[in-house]
Amino acid sequence: MLMEPLRLADLHGSLADPVLAAMEFLNEVANRYPEAVSFAPGRPYEEFFDVDDLHHHLRTFHRYLVEDRGMDDAGARRTLFQYGRTKGVIHELIARNLAEDEGVRVDPEAVVVTVGAQEAMLLALRALRADHRDVLLAVSPVYVGITGAARLVEMPVLPVRDGEAGVDLDDLVAVVRRARREGLRPRGLYVVPDFANPSGACLDLATRRELIRTAEREDLLVLEDNPYRLFGSADERPPTLRALGGNRVISLGSYAKTGFPGARVGYAVADQPVDVGGGRTVPLADQLSRLKSMVTVNTPPVAQAVIGGLLLDHGLSLVKANTREIEVYRRNRDLVLDGLAARLPRAAELGVSWNRPSGGFFIVVTVPFPVDDALLERSAREHRVLWTPMHHFYGDGRPLPHLRLSVSLLTPERIEDGLDRLAAFLTEHAEAARAGGGR
Amino acid sequence: MLMEPLRLADLHGSLADPVLAAMEFLNEVANRYPEAVSFAPGRPYEEFFDVDDLHHHLRTFHRYLVEDRGMDDAGARRTLFQYGRTKGVIHELIARNLAEDEGVRVDPEAVVVTVGAQEAMLLALRALRADHRDVLLAVSPVYVGITGAARLVEMPVLPVRDGEAGVDLDDLVAVVRRARREGLRPRGLYVVPDFANPSGACLDLATRRELIRTAEREDLLVLEDNPYRLFGSADERPPTLRALGGNRVISLGSYAKTGFPGARVGYAVADQPVDVGGGRTVPLADQLSRLKSMVTVNTPPVAQAVIGGLLLDHGLSLVKANTREIEVYRRNRDLVLDGLAARLPRAAELGVSWNRPSGGFFIVVTVPFPVDDALLERSAREHRVLWTPMHHFYGDGRPLPHLRLSVSLLTPERIEDGLDRLAAFLTEHAEAARAGGGR
Repeated sequence: MLMEPLRLADLHGSLADPVLAAMEFLNEVANRYPEAVSFAPGRPYEEFFDVDDLHHHLRTFHRYLVEDRGMDDAGARRTLFQYGRTKGVIHELIARNLAEDEGVRVDPEAVVVTVGAQEAMLLALRALRADHRDVLLAVSPVYVGITGAARLVEMPVLPVRDGEAGVDLDDLVAVVRRARREGLRPRGLYVVPDFANPSGACLDLATRRELIRTAEREDLLVLEDNPYRLFGSADERPPTLRALGGNRVISLGSYAKTGFPGARVGYAVADQPVDVGGGRTVPLADQLSRLKSMVTVNTPPVAQAVIGGLLLDHGLSLVKANTREIEVYRRNRDLVLDGLAARLPRAAELGVSWNRPSGGFFIVVTVPFPVDDALLERSAREHRVLWTPMHHFYGDGRPLPHLRLSVSLLTPERIEDGLDRLAAFLTEHAEAARAGGGR
Repeated sequence: MLMEPLRLADLHGSLADPVLAAMEFLNEVANRYPEAVSFAPGRPYEEFFDVDDLHHHLRTFHRYLVEDRGMDDAGARRTLFQYGRTKGVIHELIARNLAEDEGVRVDPEAVVVTVGAQEAMLLALRALRADHRDVLLAVSPVYVGITGAARLVEMPVLPVRDGEAGVDLDDLVAVVRRARREGLRPRGLYVVPDFANPSGACLDLATRRELIRTAEREDLLVLEDNPYRLFGSADERPPTLRALGGNRVISLGSYAKTGFPGARVGYAVADQPVDVGGGRTVPLADQLSRLKSMVTVNTPPVAQAVIGGLLLDHGLSLVKANTREIEVYRRNRDLVLDGLAARLPRAAELGVSWNRPSGGFFIVVTVPFPVDDALLERSAREHRVLWTPMHHFYGDGRPLPHLRLSVSLLTPERIEDGLDRLAAFLTEHAEAARAGGGR
């Protein structure tokens, strides 16, 4: 006897949430127009992927277990094959990488290796959402991953304006105080300080320092997510929030762009002390670990091994591991920025403009017409070019006059081809808007 | 300025839950007495693990992508390295394995590949816990993984007695009806039909049929978890609940024992229709996938590839892949059962007894004294032998006169040595209890 259909209303509310549905819609459009040039996905460049590297990194990590960690053969096999340490097996390598690339010292015991930064977000929010008063703040527009994780643990997200500086600290203080007056407990601020997704914004050093001071004054944790940080200019890389704020900051780490997404390896650095009674404190990492044991048990050691081997194969430096990638993303960004300017010499007149991030994957184009999902579909159908409507990163579904371009995945040929199509699309709709506006 | 300590009371309630703390305590005792013989962990036998197999399975899966799935080199690389299909990339192989080993036909689109069965549990419970009325039923004693997942989504778990048959269906009906009278919505029954952890119980065919009929009558989903199923006698393997109950049953799948735990690959088969409005239904798997995108995004393709390769290397049959393991677990079980009988000829007189499961990893010993964590510590310190107090699987912390032995990890030599120690421990405490009882 087959089941009667379940009703969506009888399943968890997050399933009816537009944030969770948005990514599916965007994928679905991409699948429907496979021949379109897509500036939509924030996926890393894939021309350098090499299956032999998987084998090579695995072997490197195995050698490290035996030679550096002093394991016998059985111990090395056990590390790769068995259930293992919940906090992970590459925590020491992660700590050494943070020292090497960022000059940040963290206790390896404060590192929790996670199934991508996504699981790190979920664990952090699950820990911090103790009851109905607990809310998260997030600089808006915001990466949908954190919004989704918040939905899963039923934690409201209060937007904080980004403004010119990448985060509007006056607004932050206003939002915190308003929330507290309403009996809410703002538990943390989610922020991507370098080349944020989707805005491309990068906080300057003064803003970073002031952000940390504000967090201290207002007694807020900072959740720093930083997947695009390396893809800017090495000379102008201001310190991470973690480097400035110490354990005021939980680092959410991702190797999706500096390693590869398919490894699904990320981490949290969480050395905030937790008072567990009896005068004893433990690092927050131990609490996240306890939650992780009920989410995924361990991060697959075979996946950790590949990322661990990759780190070891490049002297524990992701900057060194990404020499080619850093160059490609810079080239692609320049191609898109120069290509837009060349194709849209009358942009200002048309009411079209774009920002010029100094790094990362994303560029935001501002247009004189509202950008909704129907318009994306027209762009795909009529111009064979895809991009992402910015309203998806605000979560209220109201169309905005902005669209996001991602420059990470495309080859130069596809970029040029795509920019021809994009320029035609932008020109057509900007002119129509002007004609409509003049009526 | 360093953070003031966070208070445990300001973090999520699950962190103070004894269920989540229990596993850490048990691990901690094991670490403190490394020279003890441990009948505690339900880990698979590890003598057959071989690092070369990882490379071999990876190559097999890569060849499958190119030769069977017709991918070009770029497509195969993309599958292994990029973000991918949220529901996974080995769904077709899993469906073929279920057909091969279980004679069960499932639509590959109804399979969600997860980071171990643990993530499958979390996704299923997150979907089914829509509001405060939704509760889970679970045959008691129960695997702590499902209890932990329920805690994370704040879903109460109502115990159902196991009784002689492995599940007491009268009690099931009574619990369901009582819950409904109290305004609760029992959404599903969690059950391990073959060689349950920790009881070792196995449902016979009649009980399975009656369980499905009861679930239909009471309009309950069944969540079938079945990690130990293959480790019994091939001749006496009754059909899975899924085979009998169709889409009344969500299958929670694990490769931790039939593949290896470090892969962290599991799955849910969820073809229950969900009415999403407009006369359209989608499989529940698509809803679980939407949740998964906010938990782990994808199951690491490199881990899926190793399990996919393992399946392909054994003709899609886990029975074939586990010929040696099936034999080892049978041998170990016999060694423990025979060894207990040989060492405790006066067991009945002492008030000591044990069950004789026909398969799986676990044996339950009943003793004439309460078994708590302090006694485990004494056993470790004074007798250098470890086991698991059964009260951890009931979750209320009250000591019970039962302990669980796991036979899976030890070699014959260690088993004999451990049984000497265990017999000494059991005899000492049983005699003390008798002397105390006689006073």
